[in-house]
Amino acid sequence: MKNYNENEALFADWAGDARNASPDGEFVRDTNYIEDRIVASVSERTRQDPDRADSAELWPVAAGKYRLIAARACPWAHRTLIVRRLMGLENVISLGLAHPIHDVRSWNFQLDEGGLDPVLQIPRLQEAYFNRFPNYPRGITVPAIVDIETKQVVTNDYASITLDFNSEWKQFHREGAPDLYPEELREEIDAVNKRVFTEVNNGVYRCGFAGTQEAYGKAYDRLFTALDWLEERLSTRRYLVGDHITEADVRLFPTLVRFDACYFSHFKCNRNMIKDMPNLWGYLRDLFQTPGFGDTTDLDQVKAHYYGTHTEINPTRVIPKGPRMADLLTPHDRDRLPGQPFAPGSTAPGPVPESEQPPAVH
Amino acid sequence: MKNYNENEALFADWAGDARNASPDGEFVRDTNYIEDRIVASVSERTRQDPDRADSAELWPVAAGKYRLIAARACPWAHRTLIVRRLMGLENVISLGLAHPIHDVRSWNFQLDEGGLDPVLQIPRLQEAYFNRFPNYPRGITVPAIVDIETKQVVTNDYASITLDFNSEWKQFHREGAPDLYPEELREEIDAVNKRVFTEVNNGVYRCGFAGTQEAYGKAYDRLFTALDWLEERLSTRRYLVGDHITEADVRLFPTLVRFDACYFSHFKCNRNMIKDMPNLWGYLRDLFQTPGFGDTTDLDQVKAHYYGTHTEINPTRVIPKGPRMADLLTPHDRDRLPGQPFAPGSTAPGPVPESEQPPAVH
Repeated sequence: MKNYNENEALFADWAGDARNASPDGEFVRDTNYIEDRIVASVSERTRQDPDRADSAELWPVAAGKYRLIAARACPWAHRTLIVRRLMGLENVISLGLAHPIHDVRSWNFQLDEGGLDPVLQIPRLQEAYFNRFPNYPRGITVPAIVDIETKQVVTNDYASITLDFNSEWKQFHREGAPDLYPEELREEIDAVNKRVFTEVNNGVYRCGFAGTQEAYGKAYDRLFTALDWLEERLSTRRYLVGDHITEADVRLFPTLVRFDACYFSHFKCNRNMIKDMPNLWGYLRDLFQTPGFGDTTDLDQVKAHYYGTHTEINPTRVIPKGPRMADLLTPHDRDRLPGQPFAPGSTAPGPVPESEQPPAVH
Repeated sequence: MKNYNENEALFADWAGDARNASPDGEFVRDTNYIEDRIVASVSERTRQDPDRADSAELWPVAAGKYRLIAARACPWAHRTLIVRRLMGLENVISLGLAHPIHDVRSWNFQLDEGGLDPVLQIPRLQEAYFNRFPNYPRGITVPAIVDIETKQVVTNDYASITLDFNSEWKQFHREGAPDLYPEELREEIDAVNKRVFTEVNNGVYRCGFAGTQEAYGKAYDRLFTALDWLEERLSTRRYLVGDHITEADVRLFPTLVRFDACYFSHFKCNRNMIKDMPNLWGYLRDLFQTPGFGDTTDLDQVKAHYYGTHTEINPTRVIPKGPRMADLLTPHDRDRLPGQPFAPGSTAPGPVPESEQPPAVH
């Protein structure tokens, strides 16, 4: 396991804590993002939704024009890594990966030679935000899509990024790319996603950053109520919606795969681990072993990020060595249930590019 | 579950953090204690070991003369609760229990009516220390035995307290009290205790209070090396030394029973839980279900103490609701192995006095 705390010199100009814990109680996520989108046909989109162009710009899809800045650590960014892989967009949208540990200035490129993103030649993602909006007032978040020529952030709206990878970038998809957001399932996917977002994806943060015992207790109950609902839902079906992997699975997976390794202890989400919930544990292993999911996961970076960055809940910044997560590779027996990973005509993506290979789970 | 963080007014005069985490690396326990002892025959003891009386005083055993101040939270104090029960000394040595959460002024009696120990009539244990040594320079620790008349601490040397309960208080033992430290096993018990003390009892603290990644990594490896040794040792025998429960089991149990509920997450001892080690898990459940062990355990107070007191590693002082620990009551099947809890002629202690009943495990 790589020791991300090894080289303290990397953080010689450490600028302070990235504080999230609420001093007054409940953690509330800022859900305002740069709502620009990259679409297949700018003119058609504007015609369909003339109001939209007033508040947010539309950018054209194009091979080699954009760079996706993600971090293996971040669950919101993890979604984009999964969908980019499933769609086969690796050669169309390049990938920059931020170091898992950051300070108040947010994500940096200390994993790269010289501490600079090799394409954008910037040391911190905030520069691409400031290139676009000199006084950008909100969090510098990943995922972010950057226009390579101008080094400006186009969008950081993670909810639309994966949907647009699926629906707007069609002309660049690999052969056999699945449809993760089929028309006939959108209503159900949206409903599941809404509950998963508020109760699970964000629910773990609500536990971890609760500033009072009362806020924590409510957050914990909400989280496990939702996990119990998912455990029940997955008792009779292989995937969350329909018969195949959809956007709903893409959104749940990054939280589930981080749960036992990180949220259980660091965020005090500790009624039980996912491995103690048979259906969710089988579902998690099933997805983990599906190309696009486990092969975009780096739990060492996940732990380094959470424990190394949130000094307000882990002041020593010591990163735990455990727990053992290699059981993610054990047989799951989920193919006994109705559903297959990909619809007829769709296929799993090929091997991960050499340069994007994460370490083996251990 | 009682919410020990509920009444913030109790801590209105909170005097600051009880800091243990080492800023420079390895946590080192201060092992200097008040070495006074309470013995069966003061004059005989002095004759046996004439040097001893120079450095530490000897006090006579006597019914109703002393009060044991413990805390359900503290593993070092937990040992004394177990041995007091096993020996049937409840009516001979009274018991005061400190609140699980304390500040820099250490243990207080906020669990008691009016915040005063009902016998000593003091709000904080430190008063009994200062009554004895006005400028007492070390930690105010439990267990402590206090002379009721003078309200002075007699000893806080937890290692000798349990041995003396066993060997010096014989005339007050209940009928059927076991010998936890039989002559013929002392060498082996001492050897096991030595390794358990440095590697396990203290090993979990060495992990949790490590101030650097390197110190933590070494501490973690030491701890799990020792747990692997115990797992192996307990594969062929029911108890650690000999055929029955001894002082060695008494010293390991308080750490083991706190492990999954607390040390795994709070101290980052997270290679695995005890419940993932079949022999240790069976052994732990076996002891937990033996009178004197589970019935002196209060995991709510344990969690409240660690999470509520160590603000240097848990600044929010939020206490986790999980994990589920009721599985401590499941069948253990350890009676297939050589050994029985008590030697022929010895018996389990009777029911816990009504006033000392801890809550059910959940």
